[in-house]
Amino acid sequence: MRHFDEQLQELLQKVVIMGSVVESMIQRAVAALVARDESMTEVVFEKEREVNALQVAVDDLAIRLTVLQQPVARDARFLFMASRIGGELERIGDQAINICQNLRYVLEAPPLKPLVDIPIMAEIAQKMVRDSLTGMIQRDVSLANVVLEDEKKVDAFRDQIFRTLLTYMMADPGTIQRALSLILISRNLERVGDHATNIAEEVIYWIQGRDVRHSKGISATGEVKI
Amino acid sequence: MRHFDEQLQELLQKVVIMGSVVESMIQRAVAALVARDESMTEVVFEKEREVNALQVAVDDLAIRLTVLQQPVARDARFLFMASRIGGELERIGDQAINICQNLRYVLEAPPLKPLVDIPIMAEIAQKMVRDSLTGMIQRDVSLANVVLEDEKKVDAFRDQIFRTLLTYMMADPGTIQRALSLILISRNLERVGDHATNIAEEVIYWIQGRDVRHSKGISATGEVKI
Repeated sequence: MRHFDEQLQELLQKVVIMGSVVESMIQRAVAALVARDESMTEVVFEKEREVNALQVAVDDLAIRLTVLQQPVARDARFLFMASRIGGELERIGDQAINICQNLRYVLEAPPLKPLVDIPIMAEIAQKMVRDSLTGMIQRDVSLANVVLEDEKKVDAFRDQIFRTLLTYMMADPGTIQRALSLILISRNLERVGDHATNIAEEVIYWIQGRDVRHSKGISATGEVKI
Repeated sequence: MRHFDEQLQELLQKVVIMGSVVESMIQRAVAALVARDESMTEVVFEKEREVNALQVAVDDLAIRLTVLQQPVARDARFLFMASRIGGELERIGDQAINICQNLRYVLEAPPLKPLVDIPIMAEIAQKMVRDSLTGMIQRDVSLANVVLEDEKKVDAFRDQIFRTLLTYMMADPGTIQRALSLILISRNLERVGDHATNIAEEVIYWIQGRDVRHSKGISATGEVKI
């Protein structure tokens, strides 16, 4: 049997691969929306199967290492974290699928307006996923804290998109269905940001042994406030 | 140190208590919506703190038992499951909070129509949470499968509510903001059902050692199909 550290590294790698797959799913779902091309969503559905298989592999490995290696507390925390982060990433993939499903309603009529906010919001959400996992690899609390800060930007975009589309709907009820689809897509992206935030909080908890999941007041420098 | 089985039982109890708290949060949030009484939401916000503390306690105990008891595979699976179910329950509590937040917009104008579907949808979602945890306590796969079936009912309500409110918005743009709030509340309840389904899938995986999380085709009798 290989050294435990190598096996933990293998688990970390699986989580990171899972992260890059779900990030590309979001990117492609939003690209399909911008291009108004439903055929571009096929690859997103294919990647979902890959993500599901990776989640099962992450869980299996985490449980196997728990049983075979009798981990100390720090390693046990890592194993539980890997399993939970796998769960968050799988749900980010689900949101990419939901965007593809909502796209169908968007395409039922001509474009309401040029898409500006949604692609930017998507980029921030993807960056949050990337940063949260880089924070995990580099054990960098400050990067995880950037994710918590970025969540505010995503929420601001969600509100701005909602207000803008509301004015379209009020002015012309013929736009309601399409506007609603875009509102729902903005909510899908908000949830991607939520899951990335959950990952960042797991990472901070892991590094600092401190539960920030229910106290968002950590300082930007990663300083622990008691 | 007490017997390991007793400690596992203690962990199970914490998860069950967490479940009953989040179920009551959903119930009270929807009761506040039906009564159009924002003061009734205060208790929901109070209970959120309780849920967060319970989640931390569940995780701490699961990791402590992993380190101290060197669990065999079956018990390790239970410990990981308990931690992940704690995460699902915490998010159900979040949905109750979201309902309370959306309630504010509902109350900005007179009622759109008598609320019929949302309270029924909420009852099904609460039952799903209850059944998924009872399935865990009784190691009853058939009960967990009932939850997977009930998810279809919740989705049907979500679609019905959406179509009904769409006709209101089309007919009178003055109703758009209130109708949107109700649509978002129906999505909150849909997510409660999603989390309950995740719990039911965890329970089936635990009992059968078989991952149904990504293959929803399990038969109603809980028979394993290879």
